[in-house]
Amino acid sequence: MAPPLHENLSTLSFLLGTWKGRGEGNYPTIEPFSYAEEARFWHSGKPFLFYAQKTWSQRDGTPMHAESGFLRVGPQGVVELVLAHTFGIAEVSEGTQAGNRLELRSRSLAPTSSATQVEALRRSLEVSEGLLRYGVDMAVSGHELQRHLTAELALLES
Amino acid sequence: MAPPLHENLSTLSFLLGTWKGRGEGNYPTIEPFSYAEEARFWHSGKPFLFYAQKTWSQRDGTPMHAESGFLRVGPQGVVELVLAHTFGIAEVSEGTQAGNRLELRSRSLAPTSSATQVEALRRSLEVSEGLLRYGVDMAVSGHELQRHLTAELALLES
Repeated sequence: MAPPLHENLSTLSFLLGTWKGRGEGNYPTIEPFSYAEEARFWHSGKPFLFYAQKTWSQRDGTPMHAESGFLRVGPQGVVELVLAHTFGIAEVSEGTQAGNRLELRSRSLAPTSSATQVEALRRSLEVSEGLLRYGVDMAVSGHELQRHLTAELALLES
Repeated sequence: MAPPLHENLSTLSFLLGTWKGRGEGNYPTIEPFSYAEEARFWHSGKPFLFYAQKTWSQRDGTPMHAESGFLRVGPQGVVELVLAHTFGIAEVSEGTQAGNRLELRSRSLAPTSSATQVEALRRSLEVSEGLLRYGVDMAVSGHELQRHLTAELALLES
């Protein structure tokens, strides 16, 4: 029997479920690329949402990126994201919610000693008409904050 | 068809699988407690191990903590842990491996704005005779680094 969603998370219920789709990546330092993605948001009744996603090559299915962590809602409705990245960054981002849209900005991006330091991340995420669309802006290697990832996912199951 | 384990991770293969058991928690600021735990280590063929664990009350099954992230092996065999905690901390810990034993120490513990700052974590993890035993030392709220969690898990499936 699934527990009820924690009251702190009521405004985030629009995220719950498994989403699948595709995205595109760009940055001055790399060749443009595309990817397939599955993202999942779930809960245990406690005041945090579980979040995990993974991406893979559309061409041959090779795994690419993955990230996993938690969403929380703090005092005054601040949305908090705590996230581990495969490339060796531990992210804390925070921001606000307006309707089914989140706007988050990095507060801390801590690298492992072998990882490339990322200076800033800015995330937007919106669900409308059954589609989850997100954008990730990134500042890294001296480049100013600019669009890195754009993706659109459809709800597989909730 | 499962991909082969990435060569960077060959020394960490002893972790792979799903582990289940129990642990105990202590700290000067809290009542001692016990918990049930399931921890899982898996991979996609890329140079990181996926790691996720969750704990729950042995008394009534209520979910307690959860954490998820990645293990990497950097240059010179440094073991890197990038980990998100439900209580609003993004952890980067690093350390060394000797046989089937890891000793990691926090390098960064970044809190969300509503989280309690943790000053330091020290983790030991060892697999022997089919059991995974770990200890977590913690420094928080002005208390010196001291044992917080001790657990023993058995391999359910690999």
